[in-house]
Formats: sequence, C-alpha cells, structure tokens
Amino acid sequence: MRLAALAALAALAAPRARCQETPTERSAAADVIRRMNDLERSLALPQLVARVTGRDARRDAVVARARELMDRELLAMADDITRHPEVGLKEERSVRVLTDYLQAHAFDVETGVAGLKTAFVARYRKGTPGPNLGVILEYDALRGTTRDFHGDQHSAQGPTGIAAALALAEFLASSKTPGTVTLYGTPAEEIGSPQVKTIMYQAGVFKGADVLVRSHSSTGTRAPAPGFGSCCMNIDVVHYTFSGAPAHQLQAWEGRDALMGVVELFNHIDALRKNLRPETRIQGIITEGGKAPNVVPDRAAAEVWIRYPDQVYLAQVRERVNDAARGAALATGTKVRIDVDSAARDGISVASLNDVAFAYLKKLGATKLEEDPGRPLPYEETGTVATQIPGVGVTAHSSNGGYHTFEMEADALGEVGHHGFVLDAQAMAAVLYHYAADPQYRAVVTREFAGLKGLYGEYLAALREAYPVPAVPDPTGK
Amino acid sequence: MRLAALAALAALAAPRARCQETPTERSAAADVIRRMNDLERSLALPQLVARVTGRDARRDAVVARARELMDRELLAMADDITRHPEVGLKEERSVRVLTDYLQAHAFDVETGVAGLKTAFVARYRKGTPGPNLGVILEYDALRGTTRDFHGDQHSAQGPTGIAAALALAEFLASSKTPGTVTLYGTPAEEIGSPQVKTIMYQAGVFKGADVLVRSHSSTGTRAPAPGFGSCCMNIDVVHYTFSGAPAHQLQAWEGRDALMGVVELFNHIDALRKNLRPETRIQGIITEGGKAPNVVPDRAAAEVWIRYPDQVYLAQVRERVNDAARGAALATGTKVRIDVDSAARDGISVASLNDVAFAYLKKLGATKLEEDPGRPLPYEETGTVATQIPGVGVTAHSSNGGYHTFEMEADALGEVGHHGFVLDAQAMAAVLYHYAADPQYRAVVTREFAGLKGLYGEYLAALREAYPVPAVPDPTGK
Amino acid sequence: MRLAALAALAALAAPRARCQETPTERSAAADVIRRMNDLERSLALPQLVARVTGRDARRDAVVARARELMDRELLAMADDITRHPEVGLKEERSVRVLTDYLQAHAFDVETGVAGLKTAFVARYRKGTPGPNLGVILEYDALRGTTRDFHGDQHSAQGPTGIAAALALAEFLASSKTPGTVTLYGTPAEEIGSPQVKTIMYQAGVFKGADVLVRSHSSTGTRAPAPGFGSCCMNIDVVHYTFSGAPAHQLQAWEGRDALMGVVELFNHIDALRKNLRPETRIQGIITEGGKAPNVVPDRAAAEVWIRYPDQVYLAQVRERVNDAARGAALATGTKVRIDVDSAARDGISVASLNDVAFAYLKKLGATKLEEDPGRPLPYEETGTVATQIPGVGVTAHSSNGGYHTFEMEADALGEVGHHGFVLDAQAMAAVLYHYAADPQYRAVVTREFAGLKGLYGEYLAALREAYPVPAVPDPTGK
Amino acid sequence: MRLAALAALAALAAPRARCQETPTERSAAADVIRRMNDLERSLALPQLVARVTGRDARRDAVVARARELMDRELLAMADDITRHPEVGLKEERSVRVLTDYLQAHAFDVETGVAGLKTAFVARYRKGTPGPNLGVILEYDALRGTTRDFHGDQHSAQGPTGIAAALALAEFLASSKTPGTVTLYGTPAEEIGSPQVKTIMYQAGVFKGADVLVRSHSSTGTRAPAPGFGSCCMNIDVVHYTFSGAPAHQLQAWEGRDALMGVVELFNHIDALRKNLRPETRIQGIITEGGKAPNVVPDRAAAEVWIRYPDQVYLAQVRERVNDAARGAALATGTKVRIDVDSAARDGISVASLNDVAFAYLKKLGATKLEEDPGRPLPYEETGTVATQIPGVGVTAHSSNGGYHTFEMEADALGEVGHHGFVLDAQAMAAVLYHYAADPQYRAVVTREFAGLKGLYGEYLAALREAYPVPAVPDPTGK
Repeated sequence: MRLAALAALAALAAPRARCQETPTERSAAADVIRRMNDLERSLALPQLVARVTGRDARRDAVVARARELMDRELLAMADDITRHPEVGLKEERSVRVLTDYLQAHAFDVETGVAGLKTAFVARYRKGTPGPNLGVILEYDALRGTTRDFHGDQHSAQGPTGIAAALALAEFLASSKTPGTVTLYGTPAEEIGSPQVKTIMYQAGVFKGADVLVRSHSSTGTRAPAPGFGSCCMNIDVVHYTFSGAPAHQLQAWEGRDALMGVVELFNHIDALRKNLRPETRIQGIITEGGKAPNVVPDRAAAEVWIRYPDQVYLAQVRERVNDAARGAALATGTKVRIDVDSAARDGISVASLNDVAFAYLKKLGATKLEEDPGRPLPYEETGTVATQIPGVGVTAHSSNGGYHTFEMEADALGEVGHHGFVLDAQAMAAVLYHYAADPQYRAVVTREFAGLKGLYGEYLAALREAYPVPAVPDPTGK
Repeated sequence: MRLAALAALAALAAPRARCQETPTERSAAADVIRRMNDLERSLALPQLVARVTGRDARRDAVVARARELMDRELLAMADDITRHPEVGLKEERSVRVLTDYLQAHAFDVETGVAGLKTAFVARYRKGTPGPNLGVILEYDALRGTTRDFHGDQHSAQGPTGIAAALALAEFLASSKTPGTVTLYGTPAEEIGSPQVKTIMYQAGVFKGADVLVRSHSSTGTRAPAPGFGSCCMNIDVVHYTFSGAPAHQLQAWEGRDALMGVVELFNHIDALRKNLRPETRIQGIITEGGKAPNVVPDRAAAEVWIRYPDQVYLAQVRERVNDAARGAALATGTKVRIDVDSAARDGISVASLNDVAFAYLKKLGATKLEEDPGRPLPYEETGTVATQIPGVGVTAHSSNGGYHTFEMEADALGEVGHHGFVLDAQAMAAVLYHYAADPQYRAVVTREFAGLKGLYGEYLAALREAYPVPAVPDPTGK
Repeated sequence: MRLAALAALAALAAPRARCQETPTERSAAADVIRRMNDLERSLALPQLVARVTGRDARRDAVVARARELMDRELLAMADDITRHPEVGLKEERSVRVLTDYLQAHAFDVETGVAGLKTAFVARYRKGTPGPNLGVILEYDALRGTTRDFHGDQHSAQGPTGIAAALALAEFLASSKTPGTVTLYGTPAEEIGSPQVKTIMYQAGVFKGADVLVRSHSSTGTRAPAPGFGSCCMNIDVVHYTFSGAPAHQLQAWEGRDALMGVVELFNHIDALRKNLRPETRIQGIITEGGKAPNVVPDRAAAEVWIRYPDQVYLAQVRERVNDAARGAALATGTKVRIDVDSAARDGISVASLNDVAFAYLKKLGATKLEEDPGRPLPYEETGTVATQIPGVGVTAHSSNGGYHTFEMEADALGEVGHHGFVLDAQAMAAVLYHYAADPQYRAVVTREFAGLKGLYGEYLAALREAYPVPAVPDPTGK
Repeated sequence: MRLAALAALAALAAPRARCQETPTERSAAADVIRRMNDLERSLALPQLVARVTGRDARRDAVVARARELMDRELLAMADDITRHPEVGLKEERSVRVLTDYLQAHAFDVETGVAGLKTAFVARYRKGTPGPNLGVILEYDALRGTTRDFHGDQHSAQGPTGIAAALALAEFLASSKTPGTVTLYGTPAEEIGSPQVKTIMYQAGVFKGADVLVRSHSSTGTRAPAPGFGSCCMNIDVVHYTFSGAPAHQLQAWEGRDALMGVVELFNHIDALRKNLRPETRIQGIITEGGKAPNVVPDRAAAEVWIRYPDQVYLAQVRERVNDAARGAALATGTKVRIDVDSAARDGISVASLNDVAFAYLKKLGATKLEEDPGRPLPYEETGTVATQIPGVGVTAHSSNGGYHTFEMEADALGEVGHHGFVLDAQAMAAVLYHYAADPQYRAVVTREFAGLKGLYGEYLAALREAYPVPAVPDPTGK
C-alpha cells in the first residue's frame, strides 16, 4: 500500500507523456508535451483509478457475467472461428456465426455497411438514450504460405467483444441505466489498403459512438502512455500506374515503355533516400510488370508504402515520391496516375481509459505484466476513428508466440489464449460499466480526450514549422 | 513462254541468295554466299521447276483429291475449329476433331508425345518402307484482349495438312509407291517459350521424317529465297529469378531486396544498349514484382527476350545480359538463377522445294503473287527442325487483314481464306507427290539441303571471327 | 577514251544522288531524290567536266603558279606549322605565320573576327567587283595523350589555301578579270563546341563570298556525290547543368544532390535508347561531378552529344533527352539548365564543283583514286556555311595513316603529304579559275546549288511527316 | 565546496561513460560499459582532480611561463599565420615560422618526416630519459570559395602548442625533472584523404611519445566523457576507378563505357541504402567523368565516403559498396580498381587527462563552460594515434562563430580567440607538468588508458556478433 502510494506520487511527479520519436519531433513538440503533462497531472489519474477499481457490487456482477458468457459459449465460438480462418473481405462464415449469435441475443444487425460485404453494425434493441457504448470486432485471418490462419487471434475478438457487449447491455436494461451498446464488425484489418475503418468512419458508420473498446492478442499485458502515436509509423499507400504506347519489340521506337516508367520510379526513390530523414521507410512492389516481352509494355504499375513517424514530414516525402513518379513519366515519355490511400495516422491514446483497463487486467490476474507504460497507442490502426472518438484497446497476455505466427494461432485454442480472452472481456466490460454508470469518470475521459485532441492539432502545427524545404537556386552556366 | 525463259536466264545470271542482314554478317558471309550462289546455280532450278510442273496425270489426280477432300469435309472442319479457338497447350477439342478424322482415315494416332498433352503424331497404317512424307499441323489460337481468336488462321492448318496427307497416303497405297505419310500435331506455336517444336524434336518425335510441309495464313503469295534466315531474328528467351532475404519494412536492413535485383537488371540492360550493335533488340517484363510492400521482397523475376540477326553475336549479347544479371545480384546482395530457352534460330530455306510449291500456287490460281523471292525463311519458327530436315512452308494468299487480327480470323471463314487453304492443300500435295514419286527430284532436294547445311556451319564459323570482344585493361590508380 | 565515254553515258543513265541513310529517310526523300536526279541529269556534268578540263593555257599558268608557290615557300611553311602544333583557339603562332605572309602579299588582314582571337579574314587589296572567291583555312592541332599534334594535317591547310588564293589573285589582277579573293581563317575545327564556323557565319564574316574552297588531309582521293549529307551524322551538343542545395553528409536530408540529377539523366538516357531509332547515337560525359564527398553536391554538369542521320528526328531525340533531364531534376528536387549547341547539320554537296576538282586531281596525278562517288559531303563540318554558299572540299590522298594519328602528322612532313598538298593547291586554283573566268560554268554551279537548296527544304518538310510521335493515353486505375 | 563534494558523489554514483550511438551498439556494449563505469569509478577521478589542481607553486610557475610566452611573442605569431593561410600539404611558410622559432629555442627540427614535405618533428635538445611529453601542432587553412582562410583557427595551434612545450621544456631542464618534450607538426588536417596522422603514425613518427596534447578552436569550453568515440562517425574513404575500352561514338559497340561503371555504382549504392542501417551515411562524387563525348570513355572514377558509428558495421557496409562496384563492372563489361583509405576510427577518450584539463580551463577563467561531459572524443581525428597513446585535446572557448567560417578566422585575431589560446597553452602546460612531475598521476592515466584500450577490443569483439548477415537462399525456378 505504502509503496503504491509512493508510486502514485512518482507518477504525479514524472508524468508519462512519451510520444515523439525523432529529435525534430521532440523539439517541435516540447511545448505540447509540457502542456500534455500538465493536463495529465491535473486529471489525478492514480487517485481516479484507485477510486473506480474499488469495491462495487454492480460492477462485479457485470464482470462475472462477461466471464460466464465466455466460459459457457463464447470461448467455444472463438475456437470455432479459429478453426475456420477467412481472409479479409471474405469473412462470410465468421460474420454469420457472430451475427447469428447477436441477433439471437437482442441485437439488430445490419450487414454490408459502408459498401463492405463483411462489415456490420449490431445495435442493442433495448437501448435507451444515454451513453452509446461501442465495441469493435475484427475477424479476418492472415494469408499464410501454406494456408490462411489466425496468427493474430482475430478469431477471438468477436466472441470477446460480444461477451463484454452483452454483459453491458443486460446491465443497462436490468438496471435501467440510460444508454445503449453497439458492436462494429470491421473486416480486413490485415489488408493494408484500403483501410476499412477509415472507409467505415467516412461512411458515417461510427456516428453516435461515445466510447469504443477493442481487444487484441498480446505477448504481454501493458498499458500505453497517453498522447498520440501509432504502432508502426504513419503510412501512406500510393499506387502509381504508368501508361505508354505499345509496339512490337522489333520496332520498339514506335512505342513508349510504361515499365521503364516504373523502373525509373524505383531508381528515383532510391536516389531520394539519402536526402530524406533517416526515419523514413519506403518500400515498393511492382504489381503490373508488362504482359509479353515481344511487345513494348504499354501499362505497368507499382504500389509503394511510405512511412514516417509523423504525418507532416510524411506529406513532404510523399510529394517527393510523387515527383519521382512524375519525373519518371516525363523522362520516359509515359504518363502516370497517382492514387493515394492514407493508411495510418497517429491516433489518440487516452490514459483515463488505458489505466483503468490495465488496473482491471492486473487485478483479474493477467500474466506477463509490464508496469512501465509503453508508447502511446490508439485502439485502432488507422487513427481515423481514434482521433475522433475516445477508446481503449485491451490486450491481456494471450500468447507466447510472436505476432503473425502459427504459434499464436495455436495459443488461441489453448490455456494462455483462453485465459487472456476472458480477461479482455472482463476488463472491457468493467471499463464500459464505469463509462455508463459513473458520470464523473465519463467527464474525466471527455476532458482528457478533448485536451489531447486540441494538443494534437497544435503538435501538427508545430511540426509544419519544423521541416523547412531547402532552397535550390537556378543553375548558372559554365 | 519466251518471257519465262528470259526470266530463267536472269535467274541463272543473278542468283538469289539474299540472306545476311547486317554489314558485318554480309562481310563474314561473303565467301559462303558466293558458294551458295554456285550451289544454287548448279541445281538449274528453273529447268527443274519447268520439268516437274509439266504434264503429269498421276499428280493431277493427287491434287484433285486434295481439293475434293477440302471441298467435301475439311473446309467445314476448318470453319468449325475457327469457331472454337483454344490457346496454346489447351487445344484439346481441336486435337480431338483432327485426330478423330485421322483415325477414321487409316492413321494411327499417338497423343501426348514429348510430354505435351496436345501434341500428337499420326502415322499412316498402310505406309511401306520408302520416303517418309511429313506434314506439320498447328491449331492454337491467339489470346485477345476480349476473347481468344484465330487471328493467325492456325484453325485451317490441320484440315489443310490432312487433305494433302490423305491424298498422298491414298496415292502411295493405290500406286504401290514405296513410302509413308506422317502428320505432326504441334501445339502452342503462339507461345514464345518453351518452344514446342524444339521440345518435340529433342524428344525424337520427328525422327524418320524425310521432308516436311506446313501451310500458313498469308497476306500474299510468295516464295522465300534459298539460304538461312528467320522471320524475326534469332531469339533467346531468358528467365531471371532473384532471391533475397525477407524483412519487415521497418527493419529493412535485415533483408535483401530481390526486386532491386530485377530493377538493377533492367538498369544494366539499358546501360548496355549503347555498347551493343544497333540491330540488337532486348525487351523484358517483370513477371514477379514482390508480394507486399510492407515486407522486403525475397523473390522477384523477369523474362527477357533477346534478338539478333544471327546466333553468334546473339550469344555474346546473352552472355552480357547474363553478366548484367549477375552484377545486379552481386551489387544488391541477392542471388540470381538464369534459365535460357533458345527460342528461335535461323532455319534453312530450300529453293528446290520453295520454287516448286510457288510454281504450283501460281498455276493453281493463287492471288496477290509476289514474284521477287523474299528473304530466306524456314518452314517452322524455331530453326531446330528446319536445320535438320528439308521442308517447305506453303503460303497462298488467304487474308487481306494483318497478322494477329480479327479480320484475318474472319477471312478464315470466307472466300479469300477458303480459296487459299484449298490451294495450300493442293500445292503441298503436289510437292509431296514429286518427292515420293520422282527420285531425281528427291536427289536435288537432298543435295541442296546438304549443301546449305554445310554452308550454314561455315557461315557460323565465319561469324565467330567477326565479333571480336574489346580488351579492357586493368585500371591504374590516380 | 571509249571507255570514258561509256562511263559518261552510264553516269547519265544512273545518276548518283545517294544520300539518305535510313529506310525512313529514303522513303520520305523518294520524291526529292527523283527530282534531284532529274536536276543532276539536266546539268550534263560529264560533258561539262570534259569541257572545262580541256586545253586552257591561262588555267595551266594559274595551276603552275600555285605549284611554284608551294614548292618555293609554302610547303616549308606547312612543315613549320606542323612542327609547332597549337590547339583550338590558341593557334596564335600559326595565325601570325599565315597572316604575316598574306600581308606581305597584298592582302589586308583583320584578326579577331567574330570575337574569336585566332579567327581572321584576309582580303585581296587589288580585288575588283566580280566573283568573290573564298578560301577557308584551318590550323588547329589535336590534343594528344602525350603532346598536341597535327594528326589531321590542318597545318598544311593554311599554306595550301594561300597558294591557291595567291595564284588566283595574281591572275585576276594580271588578266583584269573582275573579281577578288578572300581567305577565311577559321580556328578550332577539332573542338566540338562551340562550332566556330557557325559563329563566324552568324557574325556575318562570310558575307559576300560567292564560292568557297577548302582542302583537307585524306587517306584516298575521291569526290562526294551531290546531295545533302554530313560525314558523321547531324549533331547536337547539349550541356546540362544541375543545381541542388548543399548540406553536410551527416545531415544529407537538408540538401538536394545535384550529382544525382546527372546520374538520373544518364539513367534516363539509357532507358530511352530502346525506344529511339537504332541509328541514334547518344554519348555523355560528366564534366562536373561534385567537389567533396563529405558535402551534398550542389552543382554538377554533363555534356551530351546527340547524333542522328537527319536533323528532324534529331530534334525529337533532343527534346526527349531534354525531358530526361527535366525529369531527373523533378525527381531529385534539383534544377537543370539546358544549353544546346547545334554542332553539325547536313550541308549541300555540289557535283559541278566536286567533279571538276576530282577530274583535276586525277589529271594532276593524285594517288589512291576512288572512282565511285562517296556519299554527299559538304566542304565544312557544321553545314551552316555549306547550306548557304556553294563550295568544294578538295582532298587528294595525303597520308597512309588513319585520321587523328601521329602517322598522319608524320606524313604531313613527308613525300605523300607534300604530294597531296601541292595537288590540293593546284586543284583548288583550277576550280576557282573556272568559277572566275567562265560565266557559263559559274551559272551551272549557281543553278545546281539553288536547285539542291530548294530540294533540301522539301526534304526536311517531308521528314517532318515521317516521324509521328506515338499517342500515350492517360492511365486508368486498377 | 559542499556543492562540489555533492557533485563528486553524484559523479561516483552515476558514472559517465556515454558512448555508443545506436541501440544495437548500446546493447552489444552493455557489459563493456558496465565495466568501463567500474573502471572509471575505481579511479576516483573527482578526488584526483581536486588533489592535482590544488596548491602547487612549481605548476603555477610553468603555467605563468606559458602565458608569458603567448603574450610576448606567440600570439603575434598566431596572428601572423592567421593572416597567411596555406592549405594542406602546402603550409611551407607556416612551417618555416614555427620551426625557425623552435630551432631558436633549443629544439632540433626534422622536416619532411613520413615523406610529407610540411610535416616535422621537433625534439628538445636538453631532454633526459623519462616521460616523453608530446605536443601536436596543426597549421593548415581551409579552401574557401573566395580565398583560403583559417576558419578552424589552426593558425593558432602551432604557437599555442609551442608555448606549452617550451614552458615544460624549460621546467624539465631547470628542475632536473627526468623527461623531454617533442612537438609533432602534422599538416593537412582539413584534407580528408590520405589521413596524415595515420601516415605519420605508421611511419613511426610518434614512437616514444608517452602522452600527447593538442589544442583546437572551440565554440564552448567542455570536456568529453571517457570511452571511445569520434566526432563524426567512423569513416572509410574509397576510390573506385573503372577502365573500359575506347571507341568512336558512332561505333560504340566496339567500346566498353567506364563511365557507365561509375553511374551504375551510384545506382547500386542508392539501391543498397534501404537495406543498410539508417545511421549509415554514404556520399560520393565523380572525380573523372570522361574526357570527350564523341568517344566511349575508357576511364572514369569516383570517390565515396562511407560513415557509420562503429567500424564493425562500417566494414560490412564497405564490403557491400565494394560489391556494388564489382557488380557495376561485371554488368557493364568494365573493370574496377578499389583503393580504400581508412580515414577515421573511434579513438580513446581519457577522463584522467580530460578532467584535469577542464578543471584548469575553468579555474583559469574559460568562458562558455559546459559542465556536462560531452560524448567521448579523442584528441585527434583518425583514431590511429588516439587508440595507442593517451592524450588530451584542450579546447577553451575561442570563437563565437561556427566552425569553418570567416567569423571564426576573425575571432582568431580578436579578444575571444586570444583569450582562448592563452588558456589552452596554460591548461596544456599544467597537464603536461603533472604528467611529468607526478608519478602517481601518471600511473592513473596509464591505468585508465590500458583499461579503456582492453575494453575497446572487447567492444569490437562484441560488435562482431551484433550484425548477422541474412542468409539468401538459391532461387528456385518457376
């Protein structure tokens, strides 16, 4: 106890905002981080966490119900989906299993939302005006070299989310607590582009959600720090399509070789690397490389992923890669079409949600605890939703294998996975319970999220000053 | 008549060997061409042609039978195949139609020869020891953007060849002339690699054939000059497969990018062009360009077609392109595998066959006659068979559209096509008749072919001296 | 004699216009060539040559005077200049030797014309209104690896031209024939760019010249055919200068690498080659490749020579290479400056001058005679003067070594060189004599030149239709 | 005082070894750093510094003498050299000024050591067996765009070093303290390659030196941490020279283009960047880019600087760049010669010397003090000497301008420069005094240096395990 108090003091003294990755970002963000630390300190989160995780019989009942649902039916459903992996946008059986259950448990289901066949929304039939508690479900499998497989344990996300959602829904109804529960079935998380959650957000699917929870497989139990961040940098996915003019190989001068446009694009990208900040990551593949070598290819295409720790410099890099493509077209007498998908952006990581979830995972017996907060991480990978709606990703230790491995899939069917999934369901239920039933807690989440959102805008503005473009003078003659 | 005699004299005075395409080749071949002209002159072909095309009732019967077969059954079969196009190595229906007919007409059919499902050999059951008269049949369609189609009229080659073959077979049997007839069903002519006729030859399929005839669609009626040549240069088809090491895009230094091997190969080929003779043609496509841009590609591949008017310099070019690939692997820390398919070589063009066939086409009423002999052209595209067995490609005018067009396909069903196909069948029948029944003619063909074959070897030997490789000294320091 | 007459007839029957090098050019020029042949036939040149080279005592005196000047003084002067080689634009001693002699022999000399220190014009003081007979002198040496040297025998051009000019000048004065003589001292022929004769022409230096003669070393004695042509294709010399932004190697992202602009330019040129007609020749060097490897180069430059048999397609090629440079700048974030020097164009080759000069060379005992007319060749290398003023390049066999060799320099001092130079002086004197003294001959030259000039314009117009640029459609998406 | 004691305790508690720059290096070095911290702690340096910088009349006299020499003569000499800048290997006047003074003050001077005209060694004539105190002098100027200049204040290094050396020499003689003084005149520090101090070391010039001091201009007064490091990464300077075969541009196929070898080398380096660790820095320039664009270049060359924070991965990178060059030669049919100059390596930074020097600078009134130790920095830039002989670089604040600026040169002539130079001379004198006169101090320096040297070897051994090379499998066929 005393130690805990000391830790709490330490936490107050050394707040944890720990986001920016590069020296330039840290320098640009210095003032923002200072104010973020002020904001976090003002929330007195250790005290808040201590309060909400204290004695509460109603919460205990909700959490117990989530566990019961898992033990009785939903772990079995998770195993079943694990054994029937379906890759992104093809998860038809999985969706049927999940939505059949939801429809049988007082949820109205709408499938095919946002024009995506395997996306769905399930709304609690007995909800009332009040906080709209959202749960995100994923269910797509990975493409393996030998077979498709659930190496990310998305197979368990549906049943786990349903357990939390249903426990909450029953609580709202039975306790007449205002509010409702909505589940969002989001397919194809493992496919880079197009980003399904962005498409769904832009189609208005998430409209009305007040808070969002999602679980995920994990190799340890941890909570991210508050702030803005992403797992693996901000990402733009860009498609470059070149057109040329066909000609027989024997009269190649009558043609324009679109494949050379692509090859020069790759040369240009390589030529640029040295003059880009070292945190930049650019990787391309050639998706259309010509049809027949006895004809000058009149069409060729590449897909390029561009990553940088922040979206401001990323935009500069993307524009230079686009110029690299335009220069390739100009030089080879071809034409290029550029299609940009913004695939990942920093999202907002909310400590008042993260810390409560983590406290429950600890309390409920999660294993492989990592007490140090990690870098800020949003609850979904695109940042599109996670910069607009507060939420939390709950990740109890559920596998001893690495991500995207067959071992992680095997763990989904075993003790370590089952243990983690049940904890995830319970912790999500607990967080949603407090959000619905505790207006004071809800206000803190709202205040923190609003504060972080404002600071995010200021951070981006500061970054815009941090990357001046060098001036290139006109060349003089000899 | 007088005019013809004059033309014959002119032909003797100015023999027609007209092969080599580049100044270097012409210079290297000067002595060979002189001796080739001597050889051709010594054959007194105009006189020979006049003699064999003279009055001959048995020949007239054979030719009439070929026509009858076409008119009665085989033009209809050609139309049917035209209407059911099947692309290379998938010509199962076409092969069934052709072989059913052959089996019903006293031919034993062996399909799946040389390991190729749609290749076949049909041997006349009543053949006797003596000249083995061969007929090559092709039947594959082209891949079109909207549908597969017979834009090369291969659909008619089977029926046309069958008409000639059957007319001859019946003649041999009825007249008790020693000899037999064999048909060679060769699929996939329109697919560049692997070259089916080379595979079949190497598997021994053509063993025993003494002479080979084949028809083909044509936009005019002409005879090639004697000598060695090919329609579209000698060709090597080379496959370059690079392997690297995979790594996540974020730790790309742990990988080796196989796609960069391919990109550098393309750069190297372009860098080489300037230092290659201007008749060289190299065109590549990228057949495997990486799978996912968030992973360093560990495999990538290209297919490159290398062409040169002769196979000697072609070998130098190929070795330089191979070095370009090896240099790309060395530079990028990847490995490369090189698979070479020799796709096309000069074949031998035999005037004693060409000129007799052309004389018959003229006599029988072929349209769009071109009296000037064209460049030497063998009767099949790989040169593998056409340098080992004498033969003739018979090409009466059968279309007013271009090659590989829908118009040429339409012509196969119409007047111009039908007219040409019948003439092709008749002319092939006539040539085969003389070869079987006229030992003196056969001897001339044999002598010419042997002479040309010997000169071809000498030509290649001369070329080997014609392309010295420049010496590159070791670099000195500063 | 009879043979000669027969040859003359043959010449009438098969006129010699033999210019265009590529199939496309020959096809575009077909009508022009036909009319050129008509023009040439109409001149009845064999008869004309026979007439003017007949008996003529005054001509014999002029020719003898040229020989006397050579033998007495000017061969010695040639030897002296051969022994004191000076490279382009630095030929100060050579110019002094030549102009001292000219001033001492009744010529007014103006040096530094057209802003070029070692260019000069020498005008005969006693000239009268009438034909202005021009003589072009060159005197620059080659840069050798071990020393500068006269491997092109330009050292003898000045004395040879002076002999002819002075013999003519004396004749005009003594015979009171109207007319005058002007010598044009043109430096730096061996330096590709800038082209001195073009500069001098554009500065008006050649204004007033009616005909121009020039001698040159040769490995044989020949006459070019009439028409338009150049020794070694039409040439554009283009300078590409890239600017970037400097930065320390350790913070290279703050810079833009101008050298990468140049490297990408070379890549682009190589990428283009395949899609250019095979007669195209492009070769570049890097003239500024960066100063220090620990700094991102902010300046780099290349010089590229682009050649094609005609100037119309050359312009297309040049524009594509310029686009290659612009694309390189765009792709690398640098800027490029493009400076084009038009270095060589087809000039007009005039048979009524060439054939008379050749007839004299033969008659006077020139060695290594080549009776077949070569390809059309103008008397100077830029085409700028040779498309505006008729003239003749006189080239008696003067060396057994190759061009640009030390052997050719040695021959300038020996028997073979001296013999050739004297013949050159005599033949030039003879041609100029006829031009000045024979109005009928002058009229033929004028008519032929005007005709060829008109046809040249038509030829260029026809070529402009001969090279369509392929249409490249906008790329569609996936 | 109390504060100082506290600082001392803090120093003991949190030792300062702070070297390795990358996560991989830090992880590989973890054990080495731990033991380095143990070593440093065991030296009790704060106490040692306190002891030696305490009251000492003899030391005060030596320090005062150094100042007197500066004030009376040597600041004027520094100004004089500043006003006569001479660039690397051409510092003849500067060397004369310095060595004249040294010869006049009891030093024997040997110039032209190690084959370098402007290198010298000056040995005290009255030295006795005992510690050999070394002073390094530099005197070369920078190449400026408008003029050469002393933008690094090397002009003052000679006089400053002489003041310290002479004060010590006089002290040794007058006090009969065993030992001697040697000055090392090292030219051309500002020229990257070849590295003069490495050449001198390898020629045995530094043999016998026990300790080395050197001053340098600085924008602040600071002491480096103990350990191993370098200012600007480990560097290899590599020269790549390509040879090809010349040919006229019109017959380019008879040549092999050496410049394409260089261009492909640059392409390859760019292609490699992505698969190299992000701390890698590679920059090249093209030093020979071809002579004439109408000839295929048969020689071309590039100079490339390769940098990495440690020499172990640097060696991997260098080998890959070398393979990039070999691959370029293979691909282009040229040959390449590779000359590697190892230009900079981590040196050893000795706290027992650094801290004493820094304590004196503070005590004597140095401005712009930076109390936090910087990263480990050796006293000379190649690491060759600084890993074999202990030493210290003394850098009092001497300019408010940046390095390599005209402002820094101006400061060399002004108050801030003069103030710093005098302090440098005094601090160097004090350190050398203690080294000569205090065997206990000498022993600590020896012990620390030996310990660090051993750990350096272990660090390199650990790094050799830290960079596994990925395995690349042989490619399989289609």
